Amino acid sequence: MAHTPHGQLHIEKHLRSSAFISDIVIGMSDGLTVPFALAAGLSGAVSSSSLIVTAGIAEIVAGAIAMGLGGYLAGQTEADHYESERRREIREVETVPEREKEEVRDVFASMGLPADLQTAIADELAKDKTNWVDFMMKYELGLDEPDPKRATKSALTIGLSYVAGGLIPLCPYFILSHPHIALGYSCALTLLCLFIFGYFKSKVTGQPPTRGAIKVTLIGALAAAAAFGVARFLNA
Amino acid sequence: MAHTPHGQLHIEKHLRSSAFISDIVIGMSDGLTVPFALAAGLSGAVSSSSLIVTAGIAEIVAGAIAMGLGGYLAGQTEADHYESERRREIREVETVPEREKEEVRDVFASMGLPADLQTAIADELAKDKTNWVDFMMKYELGLDEPDPKRATKSALTIGLSYVAGGLIPLCPYFILSHPHIALGYSCALTLLCLFIFGYFKSKVTGQPPTRGAIKVTLIGALAAAAAFGVARFLNA
Repeated sequence: MAHTPHGQLHIEKHLRSSAFISDIVIGMSDGLTVPFALAAGLSGAVSSSSLIVTAGIAEIVAGAIAMGLGGYLAGQTEADHYESERRREIREVETVPEREKEEVRDVFASMGLPADLQTAIADELAKDKTNWVDFMMKYELGLDEPDPKRATKSALTIGLSYVAGGLIPLCPYFILSHPHIALGYSCALTLLCLFIFGYFKSKVTGQPPTRGAIKVTLIGALAAAAAFGVARFLNA
Repeated sequence: MAHTPHGQLHIEKHLRSSAFISDIVIGMSDGLTVPFALAAGLSGAVSSSSLIVTAGIAEIVAGAIAMGLGGYLAGQTEADHYESERRREIREVETVPEREKEEVRDVFASMGLPADLQTAIADELAKDKTNWVDFMMKYELGLDEPDPKRATKSALTIGLSYVAGGLIPLCPYFILSHPHIALGYSCALTLLCLFIFGYFKSKVTGQPPTRGAIKVTLIGALAAAAAFGVARFLNA
């Protein structure tokens, strides 16, 4: 991440432009992992690829709805929570201003600023009530104003990427009727995709990409191996 | 959420004590949704409960590993990221202190404080470099020091709760050999559990509990209905 004289502005811009890509990568790498592992597990237990395709697609649909709709409702909840906390702060600034000023001073005391500066800041902030409430929301409660549109878009992006990612490990099962043969191709294809997505995911989140790619690939491989082992044990 | 004179302290204590419960509820309600929907979907496609149990358990194992291990590695990554950003801030405070002071002033300008106070605060913070770096981390970059132990514990709690939650919808399939009969019991049992967990989840996150319970239950029902429909269509 390059650092400019206006670090904060730069970073915010960076995060905003990559949020969409980040959502795609997150949804896809999850989609690659769980349906892949489920298909691998079932390959150890059933003799027909069509059943694996059915189970895989049922899982993808269920997972995408749980992820997408769950994310959407979580975004709504966060917006509701922000609004109710904001109404409370507005009420408190009106009814108990001295207590609220003390809370402002507490925030700056925790930064290590001396008492005279704490008081000067509290008095200055109290001059503009909107500004004062904004400050309390962000720095006392640590709440940023949520963007409900962003949450909806993010939920949709993650859900659809989960579908796209989940279809990759199933492709070989569409074509090859024998699950054991399809499993080999599915492993090769999915682990390659997991590595590529792990690489981009790490790039997007500013981590060492190769190490991140290996981590993501190992999680997928471990999940698939465990699911395969358990399914085989259950059907022995 | 009750409000005390020291709101922040109260809220932090509140969040800390409920984080464990919150992890359990999150893992469980996810575990209840996806394996439930998968089992329901397969009930529309296969004639033997034992295959649904195998697929369900393979999904639970895969999902718990992806969620638990994924959460653990994400926690590690966050800690690495914090450390590398902190090293950069320490270096910048040493090498380009005037630019860093300007960044402090920018933070307080965005709060709506006048220029003289901005300068006084920046000069005061610059007296103690550790404090200055702490300030830059928290208020310029918006990064809180992550607790790696917390991340590990949280990942384990969520993963195990996913397993516990996922086993609930499968119980009827363990006992009843005919999937269509098991499906009815699984729906009744799971939707009841989703309602109860949705209720507690909303309580923990400070939302209206009944509305939250209905939302969580509807997501589960919708995911299961969609999975059932898709699996039936594929096997028609």
